[in-house]
Amino acid sequence: MAIIESVPNFSEGRRADVIQALVDAIQAPGVLLLDYSSDADHNRTVITVAGEPDAVLEGVWRATALAAQRINLYEHRGEHPRLGATDVIPLVPISGITLDECVTLAHALGRRIGTELGLPVYLYAAAATRPERRRLPDIRRGEFEGLLETIHLPERTPDYGPAQVGPAGAVVVGARPFLIAYNIYLDTSDVEVAKVIAKQIRESSGGLPAVQAKGFLVEGQAQVSMNLLDAEMTPLHVVFDEVARLAGQQGIGIARSELIGLAPEQVMLAAAAHYLKLQDFRPVHTVEGAIQQALSSRKL
Amino acid sequence: MAIIESVPNFSEGRRADVIQALVDAIQAPGVLLLDYSSDADHNRTVITVAGEPDAVLEGVWRATALAAQRINLYEHRGEHPRLGATDVIPLVPISGITLDECVTLAHALGRRIGTELGLPVYLYAAAATRPERRRLPDIRRGEFEGLLETIHLPERTPDYGPAQVGPAGAVVVGARPFLIAYNIYLDTSDVEVAKVIAKQIRESSGGLPAVQAKGFLVEGQAQVSMNLLDAEMTPLHVVFDEVARLAGQQGIGIARSELIGLAPEQVMLAAAAHYLKLQDFRPVHTVEGAIQQALSSRKL
Repeated sequence: MAIIESVPNFSEGRRADVIQALVDAIQAPGVLLLDYSSDADHNRTVITVAGEPDAVLEGVWRATALAAQRINLYEHRGEHPRLGATDVIPLVPISGITLDECVTLAHALGRRIGTELGLPVYLYAAAATRPERRRLPDIRRGEFEGLLETIHLPERTPDYGPAQVGPAGAVVVGARPFLIAYNIYLDTSDVEVAKVIAKQIRESSGGLPAVQAKGFLVEGQAQVSMNLLDAEMTPLHVVFDEVARLAGQQGIGIARSELIGLAPEQVMLAAAAHYLKLQDFRPVHTVEGAIQQALSSRKL
Repeated sequence: MAIIESVPNFSEGRRADVIQALVDAIQAPGVLLLDYSSDADHNRTVITVAGEPDAVLEGVWRATALAAQRINLYEHRGEHPRLGATDVIPLVPISGITLDECVTLAHALGRRIGTELGLPVYLYAAAATRPERRRLPDIRRGEFEGLLETIHLPERTPDYGPAQVGPAGAVVVGARPFLIAYNIYLDTSDVEVAKVIAKQIRESSGGLPAVQAKGFLVEGQAQVSMNLLDAEMTPLHVVFDEVARLAGQQGIGIARSELIGLAPEQVMLAAAAHYLKLQDFRPVHTVEGAIQQALSSRKL
C-alpha cells in the first residue's frame, strides 16, 4: 500500500472558523489528519495529512476549494510570504511510493485545481517544469500583490489554469522529500540578531546545505524560522548547534525551539544519539524499533 | 495480545560457541530475538527477547537449562557480580499485560527452574517474597562463592528449588518495569574518577533516584556503568548531564556512551527534545508516531 503525506499551507492563521472548516474539509474518506498548526503573526495554517494517494489528493482538493471561497488575498496581511489562499501543496513520499510517482500526482492535482477551480497553478520542486520554478521563494517573489501585475508575462505563465489572478491568488503544487519546518527562539527581542543568523546559516547565502532561513520577531522574541529540506544532508541537531554557536558569539542564548508539524523519527533519534554521544545508534535500538524489525522478518 | 520482554543475563561473555548456543536455545517458537550483547571483561551476555508470555517463558527456560550444562561457576571470572550461570531473568511488561501479571509469570518460571533443573531460585523486584530480596545487589551479595557458604541459612532459603548450590549456581527471577543498561566512558584511564562519580550519582549513596552505578576500567578507559530502573523518574539525559557535570568539575570530558540492549523510544525522544529545547514534544510529533496514532483511532 502506498502512503503519501501532504502538508498544505493556507493563508489563514487567525479566524478560528475558517481554520476549522479547512481541517474538516481536508478529511475526505481515507485521509488521516496528522497535525495542524496556526500562527497568527504569519497568518497561516499548516495541515499535515497522510494516506493513500487518491484519498489525500481528494482531501487536499476539497480544502483548496474551500480556501478559495473563504480567503481573500486582497485583505490578507501576515509575516509569511504567500501567493494564494492555498499557498503551497507539497506531496511527499512516505512508503511504497517514489518521489517520481509523487511528481505524476502533483501534475494530476495541479490540472484539477486549474480546471475545476479556475486558479493559476505553478508546479515546484521535483515537479517543476522549468529550473527557475524549482524553489518556492523564486515562485513566490513579489507575492500575491506582485503576481497581479506580472501574471501576463511569459515567465509567469501558469503550468495549469488561467493566466489571471482572482482574490484566491495562485496555488503552488509540487513533490519533494520530507521537509522539517523548525523555529529557534533567541533570548533577545532584537530581530536583527535573528536576521543576521538566518543569513549566516541559509544555503542561499553560503550557509548550511538544504537549509532555508529567515529572521522574524514573534511575540517580542527574535526567531530564526527555518525549512530543513533534507535532514539527511543537514541534520536538525547540526542546525540547532550552529544557531546556538552563532548566537553565543554575541552572548545570546537559545530560549527554545519548535517543530511546525512533524519530524521523521529518525531525525529525533539522531539528535538524541548526537547529544548523548551514543555511537552507531539506530532506530532498531529502541524497543519499538526492534520489535517492529523482528515482526517484519518473522511472524510473531 | 500480551507482549512481554525478557532480558536474561548469562555468566559467559567469552566463549563464542556457548554464547551462540544460548542465543539459539532461547529462540523457541514465537520468541523474537531483539538483541544480544556480550562483554568479555564482565564475562557476561545479555539477551533481549520479546513475545507472548508462554513463548518467552519457554525460550528462557531452554536457555537456562543450556546455561546450567555449559557454564561452571567454579571456573567463572569476570568484573560483574554474579550468582549463577543464568544469573538473572527479569520479565518486563511491554503491552497488553500488567506488572502484576508478570509477577505471576515469574513465580511460574521460578517454580519450573527449581523443580525441573534442580537449581535454587530467588524471586526479586516486584516478584520478591521478602523486602530484603527486592534489590538484586542484596540477593547477589557474596556472589556465587559466598552462596556456597550461606545457602543453608534461613535468610538464604530459595523461593523455589533446593537449598543447595551446584556448578550452575542460583537463578534470580523477577518482574520489573523496563530497565535501561547504560554506560558512559570518560576521557580518562583513571578508574577512580569513574568510581567516585558512580558513587555520587547512584541512589544508594544519595544520588539520583532509580539509578544504580558502578565504576569500571574497560579497555583502558574509565567507565560509569549504570542501570536506570525507572527512566520516567530519572531520564537518560538527566543521568548523562549529571555525569558530564561531575566529570567536568575535574576537567574530564565524556568520550562516548552506549546502550547495552535497548531503550524505549520515548526515552530517546525525550533526550532529543531536552537538548533541542523543544517544548511539549511527544512521540506523536514524529511522522511515524502520528501515523500510528491516527491508524489506531481510525481505519485507513
